[in-house]
Amino acid sequence: MIRIAVDGMGGDFAPQAIVRGAEAASAEGIAEIVLVGDKAVMKPLVHNSKGLEIVHTPVYVEMNESPSNALRKKKDSSINKAFELHKNGDVQAVVSAGNSGATMAFAAFTLGRIAGVDRPAIAVLHPTISDRLSILLDAGGTVDCKPTNFVQFALMGDAFARLVQGMDSPRIGILSNGEEETKGNELTRDSHALFKELGVNYIGYVEGGDIPNGKVDVIITDGFVGNIALKVSEGVAEMLFEFFKKHVEKSLKGKIGYFLLKDIFKALRKKADYAEHGGMPLLGVDGVCIICHGKSNERAIRNAIVFAKSFVEKNLNDSMKEAMQCHQSLQKIKEI
Amino acid sequence: MIRIAVDGMGGDFAPQAIVRGAEAASAEGIAEIVLVGDKAVMKPLVHNSKGLEIVHTPVYVEMNESPSNALRKKKDSSINKAFELHKNGDVQAVVSAGNSGATMAFAAFTLGRIAGVDRPAIAVLHPTISDRLSILLDAGGTVDCKPTNFVQFALMGDAFARLVQGMDSPRIGILSNGEEETKGNELTRDSHALFKELGVNYIGYVEGGDIPNGKVDVIITDGFVGNIALKVSEGVAEMLFEFFKKHVEKSLKGKIGYFLLKDIFKALRKKADYAEHGGMPLLGVDGVCIICHGKSNERAIRNAIVFAKSFVEKNLNDSMKEAMQCHQSLQKIKEI
Repeated sequence: MIRIAVDGMGGDFAPQAIVRGAEAASAEGIAEIVLVGDKAVMKPLVHNSKGLEIVHTPVYVEMNESPSNALRKKKDSSINKAFELHKNGDVQAVVSAGNSGATMAFAAFTLGRIAGVDRPAIAVLHPTISDRLSILLDAGGTVDCKPTNFVQFALMGDAFARLVQGMDSPRIGILSNGEEETKGNELTRDSHALFKELGVNYIGYVEGGDIPNGKVDVIITDGFVGNIALKVSEGVAEMLFEFFKKHVEKSLKGKIGYFLLKDIFKALRKKADYAEHGGMPLLGVDGVCIICHGKSNERAIRNAIVFAKSFVEKNLNDSMKEAMQCHQSLQKIKEI
Repeated sequence: MIRIAVDGMGGDFAPQAIVRGAEAASAEGIAEIVLVGDKAVMKPLVHNSKGLEIVHTPVYVEMNESPSNALRKKKDSSINKAFELHKNGDVQAVVSAGNSGATMAFAAFTLGRIAGVDRPAIAVLHPTISDRLSILLDAGGTVDCKPTNFVQFALMGDAFARLVQGMDSPRIGILSNGEEETKGNELTRDSHALFKELGVNYIGYVEGGDIPNGKVDVIITDGFVGNIALKVSEGVAEMLFEFFKKHVEKSLKGKIGYFLLKDIFKALRKKADYAEHGGMPLLGVDGVCIICHGKSNERAIRNAIVFAKSFVEKNLNDSMKEAMQCHQSLQKIKEI
């Protein structure tokens, strides 16, 4: 059975939500779970220890701690212990809702990177009007990108879309401020030229509105813009739901109407909800690492474990390694 | 009475929607309107010519034309004629739903820039959970920004928020990928240091989710990121409405519920709708220029005229000139 390590101490609602989510996953038989963290704190929260193990360490990284500080001083932290278990082959994936900067730093430090990948990228699955999800990367892993980073993101995103999302020929676009070739900034323009030669289904520049409209499958951007795009998306959905709630509660008509549409609203919230897709894979590190939202609840953690399992089963890492290798070989042939 | 020039030929639904919107504004007595464009095409669309004048030019800029091309070859176009009327004092503002790149280029070329402003910025009013709107700039005027551009945007945004939005001490933030000082990219970090000394109510880095959540009044970013943030916001609202519509129509319960909540949905769409706020002012040019969405309908054009009028009445340009002057004087004192 697949074994997955979960950082029990990371997250806004840790350790409660994390322990409960991990327990749900192991009870359902999704995977064997290794909870890493302070045993004295976590143990009393466990009701059903079937398939659930605890690896003890009293150290953990605070949510607001500087990642470089954590990397220097907290090698014994729960998150790094989880990656060490992965590195040693004791587990096949790591799930963390903790300090995402520290999670990324320890992932790269302990697991190392896939050959040919200079910087890792966080991939996010975004809902669209259609039933397909679009994949945006990077959503915060690498803030300052070069065109070669974009090329690597595109190759990883392509492998991800094919293998995990089951897409045949994923449409890949570069996020820009307009579709025309004259738009964009230096980074997008230089990347645009490289993408045309990349051998992926590159469809050119795409706009912010194309992330949710289903026109593109894999959206390439840097971690600065990707993070902002994602946070705007969440914030706008939140604003609309809040506004709606406020108004519905004002009248009887509103309350009855809401009662009748309850199921649809539930589906809509689910569609807009991050947690449903189970977190964000960190692509480019030599292993499987799922970064969850800091606000992850029990359900989000459970879903992230399901998500991590699918990565392991589908050998995503091997596919990405192959894609990077092929690309490097092609580059060398071109240079001859 | 205030006179406003409207580019009758610019916009996805031009000239019909533009003429009707202009006519609505003049019939309501909001302003005297000068419609600029092809008289033979526009005249038959006018039913009520009270307060409405037509200035004829057969040339216009296509929606997909390159702005630099238009700037070189189409000085006689409807949009530039409108700016010439403004420059000559015949009108006090220009409204355009046409090619936004060309509108910006001609605005800077014909009106010139306010002293102390290196690059203009497009300001966008974004809905928030509260009743206040947040102001995001730049939304596409200047793609490649330097910290000095950010400083100028902040001073213009501050004047805008005070004068047009009636805010006392607008909270100004730099859009970033996290609130902590360690986040951001080179541009935001260098700007962050300058903003602390700027004498505005600078609250530090803000995130994408803060645009709709009402935590900040003026959000400073470059035209590349601003455009993407705005398009994501529109696209996500559109996705949620589409999804909702699709599901409501599937059942009788859904249809009845929708009927009861119709007014609330209308209010919600209105809140999310761009057109309601009347377009985007181009700040930093020496005049009043409102850039409307290409998809602007009659109502959007009418509202943009109302918006333009409020700028003229409140002398926004003079306030921005003063702010820039004060800043420059302070800089000189510091240098001594």
